Amino acid sequence: MSDSTATVRGGDDNSSERNAADEVCRIVEQSKALQESAAALISQSSQEEASLRQRALALDSDIKKLHSFIASSVKKGNLDPKDAEKLVEELSRARYTLSEGDAAAFLPSKSYGRFLRTFLGPINVHATRKDVKLKVKEEYNSFKDRTAYLFLFFPSFLLLLRSWVWNGCFPALPIQLYQAWLLFLYTGLALRENILRVNGSDIRPWWIYHHYCAMLMALISLTWEIERQPDCSQKQKGIQLFLKWAIMQGIAMLLQNRYQRQRLYTRIALGKARRMDVVWGETAGVAGQLWLLYPILFILQAFEAYVGLLLLKIAVVGVASEWQVVTCGILLIIMAVGNFINTVQTLVSKSRVKAKMKKAKSKSNLLQGSAN
Amino acid sequence: MSDSTATVRGGDDNSSERNAADEVCRIVEQSKALQESAAALISQSSQEEASLRQRALALDSDIKKLHSFIASSVKKGNLDPKDAEKLVEELSRARYTLSEGDAAAFLPSKSYGRFLRTFLGPINVHATRKDVKLKVKEEYNSFKDRTAYLFLFFPSFLLLLRSWVWNGCFPALPIQLYQAWLLFLYTGLALRENILRVNGSDIRPWWIYHHYCAMLMALISLTWEIERQPDCSQKQKGIQLFLKWAIMQGIAMLLQNRYQRQRLYTRIALGKARRMDVVWGETAGVAGQLWLLYPILFILQAFEAYVGLLLLKIAVVGVASEWQVVTCGILLIIMAVGNFINTVQTLVSKSRVKAKMKKAKSKSNLLQGSAN
Repeated sequence: MSDSTATVRGGDDNSSERNAADEVCRIVEQSKALQESAAALISQSSQEEASLRQRALALDSDIKKLHSFIASSVKKGNLDPKDAEKLVEELSRARYTLSEGDAAAFLPSKSYGRFLRTFLGPINVHATRKDVKLKVKEEYNSFKDRTAYLFLFFPSFLLLLRSWVWNGCFPALPIQLYQAWLLFLYTGLALRENILRVNGSDIRPWWIYHHYCAMLMALISLTWEIERQPDCSQKQKGIQLFLKWAIMQGIAMLLQNRYQRQRLYTRIALGKARRMDVVWGETAGVAGQLWLLYPILFILQAFEAYVGLLLLKIAVVGVASEWQVVTCGILLIIMAVGNFINTVQTLVSKSRVKAKMKKAKSKSNLLQGSAN
Repeated sequence: MSDSTATVRGGDDNSSERNAADEVCRIVEQSKALQESAAALISQSSQEEASLRQRALALDSDIKKLHSFIASSVKKGNLDPKDAEKLVEELSRARYTLSEGDAAAFLPSKSYGRFLRTFLGPINVHATRKDVKLKVKEEYNSFKDRTAYLFLFFPSFLLLLRSWVWNGCFPALPIQLYQAWLLFLYTGLALRENILRVNGSDIRPWWIYHHYCAMLMALISLTWEIERQPDCSQKQKGIQLFLKWAIMQGIAMLLQNRYQRQRLYTRIALGKARRMDVVWGETAGVAGQLWLLYPILFILQAFEAYVGLLLLKIAVVGVASEWQVVTCGILLIIMAVGNFINTVQTLVSKSRVKAKMKKAKSKSNLLQGSAN
């Protein structure tokens, strides 16, 4: 194409008019042809996608039906439990191929939820290609990494300035800047996690609700008047505790991110090698870190609840009785309890997977586990 | 597929085991086949998309080259101006086919910008299909419509309650709720407008910056202490003016939405009819509304600047000297000036299009206009 343009440019000046007319003709033809190809490709691929979507949906429901059929056959005594186990294992692999392979793009995505629709409108955030999905998850992890350092740095800096420069009393502006940063951070995290969920991530819904609570708390704390002299150190006790808790959260986030990142890399490596039957063992390699991570998480949750109770106490005693203090206290306690329940549930399901792996040789437990 | 499952279920109990094994085999085969089809479709369509992308890009650059070649040929006297006009017109139609048709999906989209990347991560929000794009725009318009009514209702309600219930003094909580609503509304609008821009909307960048300013102002006003007794009516004068301005903005938004909606419907109708040469005349039908819309917009902008100056005056006189008052005043003045400049620019470009349409019969002006 650029060759013929060059011909036009290099041509005799007298023939410019004819050349230009020819070029325009060519371009008009090309634009029509391109429009037709584009329309054809779009309609063709949407047809093929629709057909794949139908096949994926039918297969998914067949797998579910067969699962329950095998389970009921075993109960009725029509099927030997050992044979059933083998069948269920094969079925689980078929389901894994369906849900983790390229076909997963054509399974119906999880519903978008009010939060995403309100902020983004009806735009499609469901990625078709597996590498794009992994990129989104990887970028989410590195976003969390970056913010974890800020989570450590920002409150530490404020606490240091308080004792070194501000003579034990926080001025309002730096605290409000910190709270505004928290609000936008949590909004970003909630949006990204909703997008990950649409793209098939198995993130627990609680962690998203948790970020909604955190958004609400950041918003409320922005309207919370920062008390100054006199008695500021007593009145600002809640803020101090909150900042210390934030530092601990920064440490926990860094540890958690490291652990989740390793899990993702294991998945990517396995996905490339297409050895899908080893994926159940993915947690084994990083089990050592869990002994550090979980105690820290539990201490953090206890501290979160403690800060919440302390805020309520401050309100009851009457040192600071604004509604913001009470609401933030209640929100912190809700988040602590919710975090605790969900961490325990994760721990239980992880140890179940481990138990299943240990019994994998005797394969006595597979039927029950896969039917879950 | 569900037929054979039915066979399994209805079959003799003794043959359950064989049937189940057959079914599992079938499903494993099907899941493999589906995985292969999905992988094939994804790789095939990404190849074809890449080739279309290349063709669209090459054509786009050829059109630009030819445009400047024709312009320079006319200047050198190698091309008759009247013939050149015809060529340029044909070229403009080819460009229109490229940029408004299905091929537009394969032109490089505008860059995402920091705002979208921070909030959403690297997810693709570029819709390929034209109907999806129109749906996104339509939903954006109805979102703006819904919020315009709230924009009218919310501040009116607050002002009414102030004189009827609150004895001339705003309590803090309702005002803060209103400001929090504004913050989330503006964040949503900024996200949606960024998404529209990625999808090829010609929205002026200023309107997005304007929403960033509005977000900042809502955030700052959340930290702004609502003064109570004594002298609350004087100290709250800024809030009162701001609410009155918001009511006016609600009216302007409703008018603007009505006008833009009609433009969009015209476009959809034209797009369906593929009569692309009439699009330049799209504004003609709603010109009557412009005589109402523009004066209201200008009054609104003047009022916005007035509220901003008043806030600065309050700060200077010393009635309320917090930094929030000064910053909000400056932000309001920046927004008023920016809005004014951009409204004038829109008006100028609209009247240029009109002038071009009037001269369309003699076609003396087309060459210059299309080369812009």
